[in-house]
Amino acid sequence: MSASASVAPDPGWREKVQAEFDAQSAMRLIGARIATLEPGLVEIELPARDDLRQQHGFVHGGVTTMIADSAAGFAGYSMMPAGSQVLTAELKVNMLAPARGERLLARSRVVKAGRTLVVCDIDVFAFDGDRSTLVLKGLETLICLSKKSA
Amino acid sequence: MSASASVAPDPGWREKVQAEFDAQSAMRLIGARIATLEPGLVEIELPARDDLRQQHGFVHGGVTTMIADSAAGFAGYSMMPAGSQVLTAELKVNMLAPARGERLLARSRVVKAGRTLVVCDIDVFAFDGDRSTLVLKGLETLICLSKKSA
Amino acid sequence: MSASASVAPDPGWREKVQAEFDAQSAMRLIGARIATLEPGLVEIELPARDDLRQQHGFVHGGVTTMIADSAAGFAGYSMMPAGSQVLTAELKVNMLAPARGERLLARSRVVKAGRTLVVCDIDVFAFDGDRSTLVLKGLETLICLSKKSA
Amino acid sequence: MSASASVAPDPGWREKVQAEFDAQSAMRLIGARIATLEPGLVEIELPARDDLRQQHGFVHGGVTTMIADSAAGFAGYSMMPAGSQVLTAELKVNMLAPARGERLLARSRVVKAGRTLVVCDIDVFAFDGDRSTLVLKGLETLICLSKKSA
Repeated sequence: MSASASVAPDPGWREKVQAEFDAQSAMRLIGARIATLEPGLVEIELPARDDLRQQHGFVHGGVTTMIADSAAGFAGYSMMPAGSQVLTAELKVNMLAPARGERLLARSRVVKAGRTLVVCDIDVFAFDGDRSTLVLKGLETLICLSKKSA
Repeated sequence: MSASASVAPDPGWREKVQAEFDAQSAMRLIGARIATLEPGLVEIELPARDDLRQQHGFVHGGVTTMIADSAAGFAGYSMMPAGSQVLTAELKVNMLAPARGERLLARSRVVKAGRTLVVCDIDVFAFDGDRSTLVLKGLETLICLSKKSA
Repeated sequence: MSASASVAPDPGWREKVQAEFDAQSAMRLIGARIATLEPGLVEIELPARDDLRQQHGFVHGGVTTMIADSAAGFAGYSMMPAGSQVLTAELKVNMLAPARGERLLARSRVVKAGRTLVVCDIDVFAFDGDRSTLVLKGLETLICLSKKSA
Repeated sequence: MSASASVAPDPGWREKVQAEFDAQSAMRLIGARIATLEPGLVEIELPARDDLRQQHGFVHGGVTTMIADSAAGFAGYSMMPAGSQVLTAELKVNMLAPARGERLLARSRVVKAGRTLVVCDIDVFAFDGDRSTLVLKGLETLICLSKKSA
């Protein structure tokens, strides 16, 4: 399925994705970084800092959702033509388990790259020592705005 | 619909909601606060700080989603019996417009309060001077864990 | 919100919506009909026939979802320019109660009519004698394809 | 992930799933049948009859969603203990391509089988001669009602 997603249409895709990620102050605030960057596949890593928690001591579901959204947005952006902008149209996440452990990894893959809409699926894992747990599963729809239409 | 949601089953609902909110370091990190607290209705306010942005200068969609999730979680929690815990089962958001302006307000209302599952709808507005824009619309499912089952 | 949705951009909107509805054999198969047709607001009515049920005797959730999707699709289509086509991009529904009673009514309203994407919310009610119950709440994203791009 | 889903807790799972499917008049109405039945994995097949179409001649998205919902419901039900009932709590689908061809196949797998909630992912494929296309991707949450609580 995502095998067909393996060639990015913009030769400068890697630089533009990293530059736009670096321009997001919100990602710096929570301490997220890009761990993997391939055409149509992005992983975002997040150390589970103490200031990212909900009342039971786990990483806040909203924070987990932030990196899920970010991974999907950049996975989709990596497959968009030069000169286009990406916006999240909608996002759906299922919370499968508490985000326990020392770090999270959000992995998103392009499922369908249309001309206007790009759909990505998302898995977020929590790493607690040697053990990893799938904590979130999601689907996100992105819209590709061309320079002219933006 | 939410008219029937107007009596909280737990007499201590207000204190428990505020206490659990205050225990979330992630809400402190982004600077969110509870603006309205009624049985089955919660509003979360967020000043649009510079460290909450995406690459185009608007509040990051993930941050907008965080306060959406939080408003829904506490709206649902306000209608749960004493001794229960709340967890987000799933969340779906549509991003309707960029979050432009100096503050956001996420409003969530209980749509259906079942014994096990509580469903809330969510609107997030951005305030730019005198003008408000609906920037997010969402639905969230919460699960109520009783003390015994937790 | 939907106040802005009150003028349809296509003067022939009513005829085109009815004609496209009539062209859906699947709506005939289940016995659905348009009950209300306003710019940005559509209601679909469905008698609860015996051949539309799940194993507990209620109307099948998939059938309830079909009329939800249809109401949203045509609500959105009513607000699209002449010559455009409508497609469902995605749909999310929460099932709030069993669909008990003799008929269902799906009501959808346009929440945001963008140039490319239109977002609608959806309520489905079941009528059991004098009593109505909200059985489904949903959000749907539609894409507007212009003749040229199609 | 779904490896852990390989043993059904109810020895009579196969009979109960088939019996409940057969009791759904709505599945008979559209002509759907179970094609694959494993613990935590169900496939539903649907011939693309003329009375299942939308206005452009493809299978109606609502019908595609019906078999998606059904596959997920029975995949989840297969992993529930004896004496429990299954209800759809919520469903989210992305429509990726028109459902062109002579038959559809909806495949759903249990992603997480909790005591109360079961989450499934869903793929629907359309078969047009030798060619298959992924037309829908979804996530569904089911609730397991025990006999006592029902």
